[in-house]
Amino acid sequence: MQVNGAAYRTLWLADADGTIAVIDQTQLPFVFTQQSLRTVADAATAIRDMIVRGAPLIGVTAAYGVALALRHDPDDTSLDAAIRLLAGTRPTAVNLRWALERMRRVVLPLPPAQRALRAYAEAKAIADEDVACCAAIGRHGLALLREIARRKAGRAVNVLTHCNAGWLACVDWGTALAPVYAAFEAGVPVHVYVDETRPRSQGAFLTAFELGAHGVPHTVIADNAGGHLMQRGEVDICIVGSDRATATGDVANKIGTYLKALAARDNDVPFYAALPFSTIDWSLEDGVREVPIEERSPREVTHLRGRGADGQPTEVEVVAPGSRVRNPGFDVTPARLVTGIITERGIAAASRDGLRSLYPEPGSA
Amino acid sequence: MQVNGAAYRTLWLADADGTIAVIDQTQLPFVFTQQSLRTVADAATAIRDMIVRGAPLIGVTAAYGVALALRHDPDDTSLDAAIRLLAGTRPTAVNLRWALERMRRVVLPLPPAQRALRAYAEAKAIADEDVACCAAIGRHGLALLREIARRKAGRAVNVLTHCNAGWLACVDWGTALAPVYAAFEAGVPVHVYVDETRPRSQGAFLTAFELGAHGVPHTVIADNAGGHLMQRGEVDICIVGSDRATATGDVANKIGTYLKALAARDNDVPFYAALPFSTIDWSLEDGVREVPIEERSPREVTHLRGRGADGQPTEVEVVAPGSRVRNPGFDVTPARLVTGIITERGIAAASRDGLRSLYPEPGSA
Repeated sequence: MQVNGAAYRTLWLADADGTIAVIDQTQLPFVFTQQSLRTVADAATAIRDMIVRGAPLIGVTAAYGVALALRHDPDDTSLDAAIRLLAGTRPTAVNLRWALERMRRVVLPLPPAQRALRAYAEAKAIADEDVACCAAIGRHGLALLREIARRKAGRAVNVLTHCNAGWLACVDWGTALAPVYAAFEAGVPVHVYVDETRPRSQGAFLTAFELGAHGVPHTVIADNAGGHLMQRGEVDICIVGSDRATATGDVANKIGTYLKALAARDNDVPFYAALPFSTIDWSLEDGVREVPIEERSPREVTHLRGRGADGQPTEVEVVAPGSRVRNPGFDVTPARLVTGIITERGIAAASRDGLRSLYPEPGSA
Repeated sequence: MQVNGAAYRTLWLADADGTIAVIDQTQLPFVFTQQSLRTVADAATAIRDMIVRGAPLIGVTAAYGVALALRHDPDDTSLDAAIRLLAGTRPTAVNLRWALERMRRVVLPLPPAQRALRAYAEAKAIADEDVACCAAIGRHGLALLREIARRKAGRAVNVLTHCNAGWLACVDWGTALAPVYAAFEAGVPVHVYVDETRPRSQGAFLTAFELGAHGVPHTVIADNAGGHLMQRGEVDICIVGSDRATATGDVANKIGTYLKALAARDNDVPFYAALPFSTIDWSLEDGVREVPIEERSPREVTHLRGRGADGQPTEVEVVAPGSRVRNPGFDVTPARLVTGIITERGIAAASRDGLRSLYPEPGSA
């Protein structure tokens, strides 16, 4: 999408020697800059330190991480070590494991000398498929927003979203925000309520940045405010992304998503998760019991990075010194609270039957 | 309660000339300091700038504000101006208007020369009644915590609270935290999950400070985390304060309270509001429709005060520049989500009948 009037992806091949460039998302929204990934260690660091984040982008970055490893050393030990290193960076993200398994399956049968080139081609294919996937999610979600716009007779459709599931979380378009961009491009009036999304503020930092950079009307709110806005009829639809969905339609996403789903249900606001097929973990039945929830560093809660009065990035302590902190990174929204799941193949009911109707293949996808 | 081993109230008569001292809550948790209030303008500023905050403490400060005005000029014009000035500082707080009306009723019939002394006495009575009220709320709430502790066979009772309804919000003890302090003093094992409470972080700043200063075990969490913890059975009871409750048991409180009430209901966690009688607005039937919700400055969302790496207080910008912001200060939790209301007279069902059973007087209190 657009930044400063130019079209960007979140990750691209930077030069002919195979170096990858990514937008450094830890510097947003105050500084728009890039980082180069030259080794698998660079890729792992980029994922672990959230220079790149968002389930699809993590998967694509991991795929390129395998390619970077094989460029340096294409033998089996190198491949195994790369996959092990990358798989350990973010335990909750299912796309990560999915992308790594796909890379292994494709390169392992090849003679070592052919692996690196093939790995780059496969990583590019994963990236391009993600863009196509997100664009398709946008088209299907657009139908929902058009219908609401029709009922509102031209007044803006108010979408509430949590965290960042925009193009910065993917390669382009985004998942939850793809329908918003599609509506914006199609001239459907749309406005987004952006949850701040503490503790890492991905909403206030990333979603607000990307919507602003592309020109989409939006309003940042504290995570606490969404329930009140729904109670007052100021939200027409919630659309969130997902880090992992179960075969039964439970949706794991950034911590706090579940609270918005409860408020949506209590106020008859439709609540959708938008996700590509690679996010569905067909082995899981009960999200609340089975999805492992990453307990992240207390420092994400106790310290907050922002821009100081001097314009420089600075970090401040924002919790009473000495207090204990807990920081679960995700929560699970049960399928019963999810109106539907917007995928690249269409919109499914959040249930085994619903998802199977779009993904009938054994062991989908 | 205790700070650095000494017993404090949030407000006290600082010297014989009538100057009032308050703990400067804008400096907590990093600096523990006091401010002197010498004029009604000082009192109004203290309320408006949240040097003092919390419904009961606002009421007491306003009462002393009237006394400060009358000390300088006891005539009717001065009284009217003081009440008008103070009433305009925080539109949502019903205690404020209640305390001001009480002061007017008491001093207006007196000859001007007698008013100042009587005003100080009445303000002190309001403060002392608040302490007694909070202590009684603590005793009634303690019974709930004892019962949970009994069922948990000695494991700590996990209380979740939102914002700050502790002694810093009152004169002493607090409302929502009074049962916690009562349990702690009685040796009932108790642990508090403290919502950060963006945008002003009263949980991470004030509740965490006061619990820590008194030695009560607690854990700070992002506002987004409470639903997940309830889903995992890690919260035994929610207790929140209130800025205004309706005659029918709807509870207006800090923005985000409603989301926690929804999660409590979804997970069969009891949800209580603790409040003194002065918080009940008997003229209101439907909280969602009738309670005016203060829209506060966007700057509270876009900027956050904390402690910098140099140990000094500093403010950082924490929202993408140029994004629009909304900042509703409160929300309303409908009575249907409230298990009970803990008052100084006992625990009532959150309904007209429930509240009337404790407050049968016409036009209560």
